[in-house]
Amino acid sequence: MTPSEAYTELKEQMNKIAVLESTEGVLAWDLEANLPPKAIDHRAEQLAQLTSLQHDWFTNPRVGELIATVESSSLVMDPESEQAVNVREWRRLFDRETKLPTTLVEEFTRVTSKANQVWAEARKKRDFSIFQPHLESIVGLSRQKADCIGYDTERYDALLDEYEPRAKVAEIERTFAALRPELVELIGKIKDSPRKPDIAILRRPYDLAKQKVFAECMASAIGYDFAAGRFDLAAHPSCNDIGPWDTRILTRYTRDDLSDGLSSATHEVGHALYDMTQTNKEHWGTPYGLTGSLGIHESQSRMWENMVCRSHQFWIYFFPQLQRLFRTEIEDVTLEDFHAAVNWVSPSYIRVDADEATYNLHIMLRFDIERAIIAGDLDVADIPGEWNKRFKEYLGIEVDHDANGCLQDVHWSHGDFGYFPTYALGNLYSAQFWMQALKDLPGLLDDFTRGQFDRLADWLGEKIHSQGSRYDAAKLCERVTGSPLSHKPLMDYLYQKYSDIYGIQ
Amino acid sequence: MTPSEAYTELKEQMNKIAVLESTEGVLAWDLEANLPPKAIDHRAEQLAQLTSLQHDWFTNPRVGELIATVESSSLVMDPESEQAVNVREWRRLFDRETKLPTTLVEEFTRVTSKANQVWAEARKKRDFSIFQPHLESIVGLSRQKADCIGYDTERYDALLDEYEPRAKVAEIERTFAALRPELVELIGKIKDSPRKPDIAILRRPYDLAKQKVFAECMASAIGYDFAAGRFDLAAHPSCNDIGPWDTRILTRYTRDDLSDGLSSATHEVGHALYDMTQTNKEHWGTPYGLTGSLGIHESQSRMWENMVCRSHQFWIYFFPQLQRLFRTEIEDVTLEDFHAAVNWVSPSYIRVDADEATYNLHIMLRFDIERAIIAGDLDVADIPGEWNKRFKEYLGIEVDHDANGCLQDVHWSHGDFGYFPTYALGNLYSAQFWMQALKDLPGLLDDFTRGQFDRLADWLGEKIHSQGSRYDAAKLCERVTGSPLSHKPLMDYLYQKYSDIYGIQ
Repeated sequence: MTPSEAYTELKEQMNKIAVLESTEGVLAWDLEANLPPKAIDHRAEQLAQLTSLQHDWFTNPRVGELIATVESSSLVMDPESEQAVNVREWRRLFDRETKLPTTLVEEFTRVTSKANQVWAEARKKRDFSIFQPHLESIVGLSRQKADCIGYDTERYDALLDEYEPRAKVAEIERTFAALRPELVELIGKIKDSPRKPDIAILRRPYDLAKQKVFAECMASAIGYDFAAGRFDLAAHPSCNDIGPWDTRILTRYTRDDLSDGLSSATHEVGHALYDMTQTNKEHWGTPYGLTGSLGIHESQSRMWENMVCRSHQFWIYFFPQLQRLFRTEIEDVTLEDFHAAVNWVSPSYIRVDADEATYNLHIMLRFDIERAIIAGDLDVADIPGEWNKRFKEYLGIEVDHDANGCLQDVHWSHGDFGYFPTYALGNLYSAQFWMQALKDLPGLLDDFTRGQFDRLADWLGEKIHSQGSRYDAAKLCERVTGSPLSHKPLMDYLYQKYSDIYGIQ
Repeated sequence: MTPSEAYTELKEQMNKIAVLESTEGVLAWDLEANLPPKAIDHRAEQLAQLTSLQHDWFTNPRVGELIATVESSSLVMDPESEQAVNVREWRRLFDRETKLPTTLVEEFTRVTSKANQVWAEARKKRDFSIFQPHLESIVGLSRQKADCIGYDTERYDALLDEYEPRAKVAEIERTFAALRPELVELIGKIKDSPRKPDIAILRRPYDLAKQKVFAECMASAIGYDFAAGRFDLAAHPSCNDIGPWDTRILTRYTRDDLSDGLSSATHEVGHALYDMTQTNKEHWGTPYGLTGSLGIHESQSRMWENMVCRSHQFWIYFFPQLQRLFRTEIEDVTLEDFHAAVNWVSPSYIRVDADEATYNLHIMLRFDIERAIIAGDLDVADIPGEWNKRFKEYLGIEVDHDANGCLQDVHWSHGDFGYFPTYALGNLYSAQFWMQALKDLPGLLDDFTRGQFDRLADWLGEKIHSQGSRYDAAKLCERVTGSPLSHKPLMDYLYQKYSDIYGIQ
């Protein structure tokens, strides 16, 4: 068998797995969007069957042989070639999957499945002690998992790698450490500013059907293709990339909170535009057509949500449309007041409701705690105390109970240690890419005032989306912006925005 | 391995296949209900993968060995036991699947996939000659298929068996032959009756959203469980049995045709009530929990659609609700006029639009032609002439072009020879069961006037739904009604109904 034949067979096998995974995607989307309540057990059985099949196909020794044949050949000589990129990522995933003993995987599924129910109950009762023993089991298993996968210096790296390939906790910590005091200072200035946006204008009763019309109108103006996707309602917003021409958005609208629906829709459309890029369709189902970095993917959703759809220029174009839809609700509001309101900053307990300025502090707090737990420097029992101490330190407020503190997020009950930092990385990358886009595309913000987003979309498509997994996130950032990841672009961007709104320097 | 162990392993394997099939059910439902237009090719790939997996799992020689072990054991001594029923049906299906050479199956898929597109074009252009060569290929392959499967006396039996297990064409022909002249006579009397229901009252502009409310209200009153299913819109109405607690209905509403939405919804709910019966959930995924007879399943949809939801008593209860929803549209209409309108009889070209009296003649015509083609007594080229001749003979009208004639149905382009007769069998069974229900449940029609349908639903659940595949359709009919299938109950039922409406005897 020649390396080229091996690559062809490998690609066919991986395509087969990707098609089955996309079927699982339909089931998962349907679960959130449509499932009759009584059907939940059967749906779990359907999903478990597909997961198990994919695992069997992926960990087939034949896959390992094919990978070995290709990676020792001249096919991978150019590290940026389709073959080299795909085989490098398939190797990474194959090793991850095959290094974990089946007993550990099964135990992990069993424990997290139970823990997720217990977590929901603990959050409801605002009592961490109910969740604690389950979280202790999960931490134990996560450390075992990391040990099976292996790492150079810090155990947490092995977990982080699942969401942010080849990222290192030490590098992330350096960036976060530089960012933290500057954010805290910024938030202090905002707090002391005499200017206070009137967010009550977003809390009026906004008709849900009209909100939906507006969100879909924005989405299609930005570039979301409704012939290759659809919007449906769900409790938790998400972007579901089901197939090469099937990228569906689940979102929600809240009657007394216009900004919830706006930010959910624009965030998820940001994800969708990545998946809808032409080259990603051509290489659908392979790493060459999709980044493995959650941070990079999140940078796209955050850029559209924050840099574009919270910009003054965006609302120059869209505010008149919004006023026509909500005549009575919003006729007394000026564009400037509306823009200030959607950019309101105020420290609060809940991460998913946090504004652009405070959001990253929520993440850093989780990152600190996860890292200490996985390293063994912090006991699970001490999480609430540690959480509340840091929360006061970073955000200046006292946590009143654990449901507003360390019990608020679902991630740990799923065993997703290493996931949180990708949210902050997404914000950092989004700002660094954004500053570069402003340089590369003169007059970009003026485009928005005319409802034109093509130049930005094309730039993102070429510079980022079509790069797939060709480069790690850190390398991609350097190639696109000429510099390694830094906290400065984010701070520059935030100061620019808030100097207008809050009059700070 | 003991027979009991073999049965357990077999049942597990069959459950695995049923779960995968139910995933295919989600994809198929989603295709009709939600699919973005550009996603159609990828959906075809997803469906083909699941079909192929199921085929591989089902035709695994191990399945054959397990079946053989059980069927030669004492486990099947009682032919009505769960084990005996399941193994008998799995044997039938296993033999059907394994007797067909892979090359034939692939050729069939290839030819019908192309033919389906060509048929749509031919229908659009009203030109049978475009479709003719493709239909000739399909007929040739269908005859090969029948020969591989085997039959006793008539080749068509082998095809019929797929939809109506162990039914024989000669028996069906006897029933149809008795029914045909009586139907023709009945339709003649109706034609000559001076009473003419005013169907214009159904053709007023009925708001679609209100139609939806009314249809779902009827469905839940009849017994459809909205916690284990949902209603969505699609071009073609269907009932999708996805899982033991997930039976979804696709239906449609037409602005200028109230009866289309009413009959579609009540028909599909009739199917759903079969699948929603408790015992069928317990034995979900096995023949013991589901009839293999399309005729029996159709008898349930037709009973609810026609006997129940077109009855005078049903509308005594529901007409006031309808009037409240459509005040201005329907305030001048009496209950009697409305009831007459929804039971209007008039020969027309299109089967799916046909009324209760003429519908079976559409089927018999197709049955005659299919039978002659498969036997080799009729050339494909001669279908249009034969169709139009019989249509004039049975329904008294001249076919104006082939789109209103032999090109109207999709079935032949899919290669579904043997399917059509099950529609007429469904009507015949529904009438025979209905007449028995009226005997067994005194005052049944009065229940409907109070919006009560439980006694009928329970009777159907016990007598028919919970029997699954325990008996063939013919045997089940005899057990429930004490008589073999006959055309008389249907004629009696129709005369009862039309004597009221048309004043005929």
